[in-house]
Amino acid sequence: MKNEKSIKKLEELGQKTLDMINRMEQPYFELPVRSLSNTFFDEKSKTIKMGNKMSKRYFLNTKHTRKYAQTISIAAELKKIIKEQATISIRDLYYALKHTLKNSKENSFENQGESDPIIEDLEASLGLLREELNLAASTKGVISGKLKIKDGKDTIDLSKMGSGGWGVPSNVEPDTIEIKDLDADFVLFIEKDAVWKRFNEDKFWKKHNCIIITGKGQPSRAERRLAQRLNKEFNLPIFSLMDADPWGFYIYSVIKRGSISLSYSEEKLATPDTKYIGLTISDIDKYKIPPEVFMKLSPEDLKRIKDMKNYPWFKNKLWQKELNLMKTKNVKLELEALSRKRIRFITEEYLPDKIRNKDFLP
Amino acid sequence: MKNEKSIKKLEELGQKTLDMINRMEQPYFELPVRSLSNTFFDEKSKTIKMGNKMSKRYFLNTKHTRKYAQTISIAAELKKIIKEQATISIRDLYYALKHTLKNSKENSFENQGESDPIIEDLEASLGLLREELNLAASTKGVISGKLKIKDGKDTIDLSKMGSGGWGVPSNVEPDTIEIKDLDADFVLFIEKDAVWKRFNEDKFWKKHNCIIITGKGQPSRAERRLAQRLNKEFNLPIFSLMDADPWGFYIYSVIKRGSISLSYSEEKLATPDTKYIGLTISDIDKYKIPPEVFMKLSPEDLKRIKDMKNYPWFKNKLWQKELNLMKTKNVKLELEALSRKRIRFITEEYLPDKIRNKDFLP
Repeated sequence: MKNEKSIKKLEELGQKTLDMINRMEQPYFELPVRSLSNTFFDEKSKTIKMGNKMSKRYFLNTKHTRKYAQTISIAAELKKIIKEQATISIRDLYYALKHTLKNSKENSFENQGESDPIIEDLEASLGLLREELNLAASTKGVISGKLKIKDGKDTIDLSKMGSGGWGVPSNVEPDTIEIKDLDADFVLFIEKDAVWKRFNEDKFWKKHNCIIITGKGQPSRAERRLAQRLNKEFNLPIFSLMDADPWGFYIYSVIKRGSISLSYSEEKLATPDTKYIGLTISDIDKYKIPPEVFMKLSPEDLKRIKDMKNYPWFKNKLWQKELNLMKTKNVKLELEALSRKRIRFITEEYLPDKIRNKDFLP
Repeated sequence: MKNEKSIKKLEELGQKTLDMINRMEQPYFELPVRSLSNTFFDEKSKTIKMGNKMSKRYFLNTKHTRKYAQTISIAAELKKIIKEQATISIRDLYYALKHTLKNSKENSFENQGESDPIIEDLEASLGLLREELNLAASTKGVISGKLKIKDGKDTIDLSKMGSGGWGVPSNVEPDTIEIKDLDADFVLFIEKDAVWKRFNEDKFWKKHNCIIITGKGQPSRAERRLAQRLNKEFNLPIFSLMDADPWGFYIYSVIKRGSISLSYSEEKLATPDTKYIGLTISDIDKYKIPPEVFMKLSPEDLKRIKDMKNYPWFKNKLWQKELNLMKTKNVKLELEALSRKRIRFITEEYLPDKIRNKDFLP
């Protein structure tokens, strides 16, 4: 059964509570503190991580009682849906549990803003991804290239997806998604859907023996997790292709190091081996990109550049140079700007050239 | 060659201009007026449509000269990309054409806000979808079910897509996407991705011999066009499954009748045969949905209800009743609210029941 080990962890949680009640002790949970102050960059895993600070949630503390009951109720529901082998959204979970308590006007949950953080508490304290608790996050991405995916009884050949690509599902864990017949040398992680379409139409993945994936903007958990699996389990290098703007750099940073809000899961989502293949402001001179396609930085861009210069993983000569160059030139550049050269410049010249010259940023 | 007939239409446009110049006449284009005043509900096609009002764009009218030159430049570029058999985004097109005119400081286009409306002018005046001009719109949707798609050299079996589904590509025109081995009785057009995932996981399309598609919110052109093709070419009924809120009703309205902003293309995008299968406010009593999962209407919701009551296609007893019921009960309801009954209530009871009883809205 899928996610059977998660049931055990949920039952342990319940058993502990029961034991405390039987011993006439006050029941409590121990939960990791999910705040910025308990988030750090872990030099060992090379990802953003949650620290060791713990807090306690007591049933008999009136400030905690509501949350305590909600935690128990969510844990019980998760056990139930895993047993039913159903995958549900966090919105489903909220509705499934929402009810008015007997002989009262009190609702179990007032809104989803109450249930979502408790799901995160459980993920963090049990050391499980939400996908391992049969919860489905939303997904946007598509993928194609030289591999097959075994998903349930279906074997899906990602080199035969036509112009559409396979829609990345929310759960790409090994017991759901098996990676088969992998015949690729690297993964190209593309920020924009329109650019992915260019690479797919030009069958870039065929000519260059690779896999192309996009999260259509900021990628969902599933696209990041799938890239991580391809890197960790199959040693495939991951190359990120983003706009040369602070937002593109930030998306790269999340793919590589993770995000603060998901720090408790980043060890399983981030891919520290990722390299940045483009677009950069240095490319302007290298590829003679005409100034007509430049865009000016906004005040928000400038703030973001300042912030990023202080990220530990951008504290590197090459990145500092790029960030400074962007600021002093007051220029940002979209991937589509390369269409000014010619429509297939990006797939036929730019990327092959970058790969040949190993022109990456760390 | 794909979209060869579009090249002819573009060349005719150029030839006309050339003829006028050779005759020493002032060159002009005739363009349909793309405004609300020239939009109407066509009783024959049962879709929103553009009217017959035309305007003229003169090369020698200084107010028109810039737009005239831009139109010629876009038409020429479109001919080029069709010949190259490349599909590009409207952003690519903007960048491809952006340049500073020789011996001047004048740019061909200042921003994409200048090129996009001209693309729409060309679509409207040539009677072509942008997909027929090798332009790719963004796409979000996924599809699975009992059919195969032939896309280039690939044949994609949509009944073997695992948990992911096939990502709907931007161009689903007959010369790109061939529909094969169709063994479905109907199409279920689902508003929300999370709900589509529920139907896909429960293999609803297998048990009920159908196709399930979602546009992940407001659908893109491609999802609507594909549904239309399945309806028009294969006589499949389309059933829409939306939230019982003004936004869900509006999305249904666009699938069925089209939108004002795309009035010039709606005859090829809208599917007047679509029926509304759920969710409705009447369902609250029919399925004993508990009040804990109700949501109150916002002032914006109330405004939208008022607007929709005046749409010609909602001027129908059943719809007026639903809209009034929503207003008087002051209730809206999300599809996920059905999870309050049980997680698989929607796929195992609600939808089968609706189909059995033919409980649809027109």
